[in-house]
Amino acid sequence: MKQGVSEDVVLHLTEAIRSWGLTPHVSRGQERTVIGIIGDEDLVRGKPLEVFPGVESVMSVVKPYRMASLASKPERPPVEVPAPAGGPPIRFGGDKIVVIAGPCSVENREMLFSLAQRVKAAGGDILRAGAFKPRTSPYSFQGLGVKGLGYLAEVRRETGLPIITEVMDTRDVEMVAEVADIVQVGARNMQNFNLLKVIGRCGKPVLLKRGMSNTIEELLMSAEYVLNEGNDRVILCERGIRTFEKATRNTLDLSAVPVLKKETHLPVIVDPSHGTGYWDLVPPMARAAVAAGADGVLVEIHETPEEALSDGAQALLPDTFDALMRQLRKIAEAIGRRA
Amino acid sequence: MKQGVSEDVVLHLTEAIRSWGLTPHVSRGQERTVIGIIGDEDLVRGKPLEVFPGVESVMSVVKPYRMASLASKPERPPVEVPAPAGGPPIRFGGDKIVVIAGPCSVENREMLFSLAQRVKAAGGDILRAGAFKPRTSPYSFQGLGVKGLGYLAEVRRETGLPIITEVMDTRDVEMVAEVADIVQVGARNMQNFNLLKVIGRCGKPVLLKRGMSNTIEELLMSAEYVLNEGNDRVILCERGIRTFEKATRNTLDLSAVPVLKKETHLPVIVDPSHGTGYWDLVPPMARAAVAAGADGVLVEIHETPEEALSDGAQALLPDTFDALMRQLRKIAEAIGRRA
Amino acid sequence: MKQGVSEDVVLHLTEAIRSWGLTPHVSRGQERTVIGIIGDEDLVRGKPLEVFPGVESVMSVVKPYRMASLASKPERPPVEVPAPAGGPPIRFGGDKIVVIAGPCSVENREMLFSLAQRVKAAGGDILRAGAFKPRTSPYSFQGLGVKGLGYLAEVRRETGLPIITEVMDTRDVEMVAEVADIVQVGARNMQNFNLLKVIGRCGKPVLLKRGMSNTIEELLMSAEYVLNEGNDRVILCERGIRTFEKATRNTLDLSAVPVLKKETHLPVIVDPSHGTGYWDLVPPMARAAVAAGADGVLVEIHETPEEALSDGAQALLPDTFDALMRQLRKIAEAIGRRA
Amino acid sequence: MKQGVSEDVVLHLTEAIRSWGLTPHVSRGQERTVIGIIGDEDLVRGKPLEVFPGVESVMSVVKPYRMASLASKPERPPVEVPAPAGGPPIRFGGDKIVVIAGPCSVENREMLFSLAQRVKAAGGDILRAGAFKPRTSPYSFQGLGVKGLGYLAEVRRETGLPIITEVMDTRDVEMVAEVADIVQVGARNMQNFNLLKVIGRCGKPVLLKRGMSNTIEELLMSAEYVLNEGNDRVILCERGIRTFEKATRNTLDLSAVPVLKKETHLPVIVDPSHGTGYWDLVPPMARAAVAAGADGVLVEIHETPEEALSDGAQALLPDTFDALMRQLRKIAEAIGRRA
Repeated sequence: MKQGVSEDVVLHLTEAIRSWGLTPHVSRGQERTVIGIIGDEDLVRGKPLEVFPGVESVMSVVKPYRMASLASKPERPPVEVPAPAGGPPIRFGGDKIVVIAGPCSVENREMLFSLAQRVKAAGGDILRAGAFKPRTSPYSFQGLGVKGLGYLAEVRRETGLPIITEVMDTRDVEMVAEVADIVQVGARNMQNFNLLKVIGRCGKPVLLKRGMSNTIEELLMSAEYVLNEGNDRVILCERGIRTFEKATRNTLDLSAVPVLKKETHLPVIVDPSHGTGYWDLVPPMARAAVAAGADGVLVEIHETPEEALSDGAQALLPDTFDALMRQLRKIAEAIGRRA
Repeated sequence: MKQGVSEDVVLHLTEAIRSWGLTPHVSRGQERTVIGIIGDEDLVRGKPLEVFPGVESVMSVVKPYRMASLASKPERPPVEVPAPAGGPPIRFGGDKIVVIAGPCSVENREMLFSLAQRVKAAGGDILRAGAFKPRTSPYSFQGLGVKGLGYLAEVRRETGLPIITEVMDTRDVEMVAEVADIVQVGARNMQNFNLLKVIGRCGKPVLLKRGMSNTIEELLMSAEYVLNEGNDRVILCERGIRTFEKATRNTLDLSAVPVLKKETHLPVIVDPSHGTGYWDLVPPMARAAVAAGADGVLVEIHETPEEALSDGAQALLPDTFDALMRQLRKIAEAIGRRA
Repeated sequence: MKQGVSEDVVLHLTEAIRSWGLTPHVSRGQERTVIGIIGDEDLVRGKPLEVFPGVESVMSVVKPYRMASLASKPERPPVEVPAPAGGPPIRFGGDKIVVIAGPCSVENREMLFSLAQRVKAAGGDILRAGAFKPRTSPYSFQGLGVKGLGYLAEVRRETGLPIITEVMDTRDVEMVAEVADIVQVGARNMQNFNLLKVIGRCGKPVLLKRGMSNTIEELLMSAEYVLNEGNDRVILCERGIRTFEKATRNTLDLSAVPVLKKETHLPVIVDPSHGTGYWDLVPPMARAAVAAGADGVLVEIHETPEEALSDGAQALLPDTFDALMRQLRKIAEAIGRRA
Repeated sequence: MKQGVSEDVVLHLTEAIRSWGLTPHVSRGQERTVIGIIGDEDLVRGKPLEVFPGVESVMSVVKPYRMASLASKPERPPVEVPAPAGGPPIRFGGDKIVVIAGPCSVENREMLFSLAQRVKAAGGDILRAGAFKPRTSPYSFQGLGVKGLGYLAEVRRETGLPIITEVMDTRDVEMVAEVADIVQVGARNMQNFNLLKVIGRCGKPVLLKRGMSNTIEELLMSAEYVLNEGNDRVILCERGIRTFEKATRNTLDLSAVPVLKKETHLPVIVDPSHGTGYWDLVPPMARAAVAAGADGVLVEIHETPEEALSDGAQALLPDTFDALMRQLRKIAEAIGRRA
């Protein structure tokens, strides 16, 4: 409460608190009076406490997420993705670092198949490629759409690699979930709550990317939307936040990895391609991600970045990806994991 | 190009530029070589110039937006919204400052009607209220949805006030556009490109709110998505950006108003309620917005903020709103406009 | 405290609190235990509460500033600056909006005198000009230094205009305070605590600019350093913060004006020249500053911006400054003040 | 230049460019005219090109730093710090990762000696501890000052460990440089240009910490200030930047490490203690720093963090530091270095 608040004003608030079925707990200090609220958090959520007379500020001591919290599953069960060709599933959050790689966009059938082979040969676990692309400009390449999905289904069948691809529209979720082994929510849609709800009912694991201006707490609240619909296979992804620094496309917030490990049981991976925007920064930051405790990395690759239809500047050549895989194995080993 | 770049490397790039149907223009300085690209910007857009050997950085001298640019309509035609009850339309970008007010959410029929009367009595131009609410938490009040839309249609009919309300899902655009005089794209959906495309074809004026981490250029690119679908009635709204400062909910970037006035013919309004998050900061920032040249303001009001289901802390009491209207009229007059 | 914290852990902390001469106040909720600390805030300041076992987070309910707080001087006494030529003092925080204008740097004797005449003729209150310049590059013009101070002393004598100029080094404070009517602490030195201490003992009013990455609370803490040395004539200045937006040099945080008015008795002015970085954005943002409740503005002017040795892009031509003065008078009047 | 710029306006600018002794280079595209400026960059620096009529924006193709640039010393010579007790020097930028550890502040003689022994026993290379402390609040512990320097001199003599300590005031540089093996410029003073100049002449290696709101380019410009005074032993330190994310004290920008490796020959270390603000985030981020290519890490340790006079929350216990040293050795090995 504000300094010098009167007895009446305190009474007005404590009565409101009681009227909501909660218990007020008044502490009077030398300079300030603090009113604690005890009871079911659902009853207090959204109450505009700040507008009550005499209130200076409102602080929450309870985390707003529950199903995403580490307390709800302290054993940290890995998120499993069945292998398309049978065999053991891919596990996010186990000993093994999961490596997801592929082009930014599905550009055509050939490039997708060729890159899929390279991912598989290098020991990558999952193929990524976008059929629907969120682009800042309406005049930029918008992705192949349904045709791209078709190529993804084919390459999945032929290579046995699980597929991860983005969905941007509630109307497309069903169609994408039929092809994808993991459905991706992109950074720009992290707070597209209708999309989160629909995806929460699609039956497939979800990769939820952190929005470029969203806090770690908001990321967990968006995960909570998916979990709340009954889908408990959510994988979180740090991909850089927007800051004043312009030397990189975004500022990759690697501290988010250990912070998330303290807060949630959900696995956490890192995307150093979008996180930095430049291919030559990707290997050091991928190594750093694994050293920081990430459960996987997601990197973009391309055979001819000079001809890429999107994000060529951040794509690794396949040979550079091969070298990175060898580095990641060493780093993983150094911290008692494997890649 | 990087320092000490060889002739071969320059040649490799200039040949690629020519192969795209463009003209390279090489300037050799004492320390650096600069290659200009001349020709149709559509041919160069999205080309990953950064990945060519020897390239140090890529700078664009052409703005990425066209239809939104001031150059495309230097006469700055106002955006007109027909009055539901007939009579002269509301004009955004004319002499008159447009005032939009109403509750954050439609909470029930009574409060909506009561507040609409207050908006009308105070001389407000448009009623705002959300039927679909984007909420950070899945456990918070999510809006009345279709029922809320129904109340909005009723209040529009009875008061003759035009209605502005948000749409969050491509599946809801048609339904919302039937009721709303202006369809709002919220900050979290500024880069929901599918939504922008659908709204661009809905036939109604659009209020496009700046995303909390989006640049002014990105705001104009999102406007371009709507314009590109044939809808030229786009109103831009500054509503605060996310920064390190926590004394306010967001940092209201009022400089965006004069910057946008230099860049675009589209009208610009300001939302000091979301921009600050506290009701007592709303009047000074609304006055400042008008003084800075905004074409309108959007403010949240509530008769009993202590009981508001969302954003009570930033809602003005109707009496405070009345007083604000009087202040805005004086400020508008001081700069040769009216409110 | 963390969820499920044991009795022992709570006891360990409450005993430590008592050992510091403070009183612990334990509230047990359904999910969480909260421990309040009651007593003299000086005893708890700096105690590393976060490292005690079981502590989840620490929240302060007492503001860290005292002498700067509004509670310490609720009557908001203006800060007075004596007029060099005698007569009534300049008052920051009274009815009148104080206008400070002048070139970024003292470039030579002639330009300083000529601009001072223009400031005076237009009705400006105080002349600003830098003798010592903080420049990002060691190769840029660093200011005329002592020679520049000499010119400032001369122009002060001849025009009777009070002078404000920046000091960057503890070794120069005495020298600068002999010439200046107001000593300026620049944004880059807002947390140069030794400088603040020395300036706090210099006997002259102080203009304290907000650092480009400092919170409003930190600005008040830096004011507290000056106040704590016995100098109670501190004027605060919002001059833009660093954000992701690059359309302006900084993001002018005008909301800081009403926020500061709630928190402190110290007067607040705004610098739209540094705040935006472009001369054509200065008039709208200066108007907005006054409309938001600022006690003054600080603007840069130059007769030939094309030849300015620093910050030419943000300098107003004297004629534009004249026009701005007329606009500010109207805005001031509209809110019941004068300029 | 702006669209539709006239021939006269272009001529006005090209003549000014020639009058400065530089060569204009005009490229006319379909929509825009671009004017390149060729010649000595010192002649163009600081010219207010933006204010010339018709200029839309100004882009620099030459980096503003020279002595700090990689081009100036492509062989990347390590920065050497002589060992106080004789023997081989400490080398920053060689194979070996340099580990700097110690308490935030010198609190008393005993704790300093005890922690120095722990640093030495664990294989740390350099002891850090602050005698002069920049504190946000004037009421917080401000450091032991000269007495603290005395303890540092003693512990250096007795243990043979090189000392790094911060200097905040130009008046103290000589005194600090007598004791310290490396003089530290703290984040808040990164753009205290007078301090940089004085330190550039002090004869000791310098640790330059990145300001919490400074870009990588500005960090290099501040290094340039020191180099320009003749001191070429500058070590850069990433210690976190200020962003909207509040889960950590700062956002550790690890990408700065590979970015700096592309731009400069100067060695780069990382401070995960200030970078995160919480002790349990320090080990993962220290590992990540080494994996990303940092030449060293700087970590804070304390034997009784619960009693620390400053920054206890981010201090490692000595045993945790021992364990971290073992982890860093493994990570260093995994990337072909040693720690």
